[in-house]
Amino acid sequence: MITSPSSLRRSERSRRAILRASLDLCTERGYGRVTVEAIAARAGVSKKTIYRWWPSKGAVLLEAFADVLVDATPFVDTGDIGADLRAHVAGAVRVLSVPPFGPAYAGILSELHHDDTLARAVREQLVDPRVEEAVGRLRGAQDQGQIPPGANLPLAVEMLYGPVYYRHVLGKPVQDEETVAALVDHVLRALRAPGY
Amino acid sequence: MITSPSSLRRSERSRRAILRASLDLCTERGYGRVTVEAIAARAGVSKKTIYRWWPSKGAVLLEAFADVLVDATPFVDTGDIGADLRAHVAGAVRVLSVPPFGPAYAGILSELHHDDTLARAVREQLVDPRVEEAVGRLRGAQDQGQIPPGANLPLAVEMLYGPVYYRHVLGKPVQDEETVAALVDHVLRALRAPGY
Repeated sequence: MITSPSSLRRSERSRRAILRASLDLCTERGYGRVTVEAIAARAGVSKKTIYRWWPSKGAVLLEAFADVLVDATPFVDTGDIGADLRAHVAGAVRVLSVPPFGPAYAGILSELHHDDTLARAVREQLVDPRVEEAVGRLRGAQDQGQIPPGANLPLAVEMLYGPVYYRHVLGKPVQDEETVAALVDHVLRALRAPGY
Repeated sequence: MITSPSSLRRSERSRRAILRASLDLCTERGYGRVTVEAIAARAGVSKKTIYRWWPSKGAVLLEAFADVLVDATPFVDTGDIGADLRAHVAGAVRVLSVPPFGPAYAGILSELHHDDTLARAVREQLVDPRVEEAVGRLRGAQDQGQIPPGANLPLAVEMLYGPVYYRHVLGKPVQDEETVAALVDHVLRALRAPGY
């Protein structure tokens, strides 16, 4: 089937309306009371349209959350791995610290333990690509001599993201700027990065 | 009111029966389908007895999980902080890797975002005391010259526990022994512990 440009445009418009509606409803009602029915009504589409693209409300909210998170946490390369990691982690912390994004992701994570499809989607659509990009950014720093060869980069990424998840799932206050900076310093020192 | 030794014994017997019943039901049905009613029936007590001691099924399972976790992750001091942290973290990973404990804790965490009482109980009854003990063990190592003065010990604890939570809530495979050892090495190196 060939999809025409105008139907693609319409699809993209519907997609955006659906994601926006899911986040708005999350703000108004809390994650637990958002339904696919309400998202459809708010976005002006049919439930069938939603179910054609997503298997559950969790999957809709995951895509909405991921769009915002990815925008807020680009992997820039200014040539200073410390500064770039601080900006990256601080961006993630900022997104998680405000409604509806923080509560939406908490709601999504809360469904993983009984929804294997959503659990796979979180890992495959959000976490694994982000981890791969983070490892890529660290590898770039390695190429520039800022991190020694042979450093355990995947472990470093878990040491950066782990404490952020830890506070988020436990409902502890998110890291402030100083704590993010200390975390990045400690992780770079753990990798024996020169100057840390 | 003076509580007699025999009524304390009876209470402790009921408490143990209730905790055991909650874990057994979690194994059989999964966290989501455990109810206070079923726990009461299985333990041979009234629902009223359970609600006298705990506000929700999540609180019962939290106490059951915490008992097991605390037993599995003592803070020993063999004089070797690396070995002691490896044993401690490996103990936590082992508990989380098997039913019903891993799924029970995932279920408990999944309720935090909409149950503030349970969220507070997890922090105050489980996480904060564990963090305090972990900081205490690190401080002991500091006194023995294994960690430099001025090291950021609370951050170190988050760097140890964070990656464990990260994998647990995302349903990723838990850390193997080698990864736990690498994590502990990296955290001690981040603290500038001599020899790491």
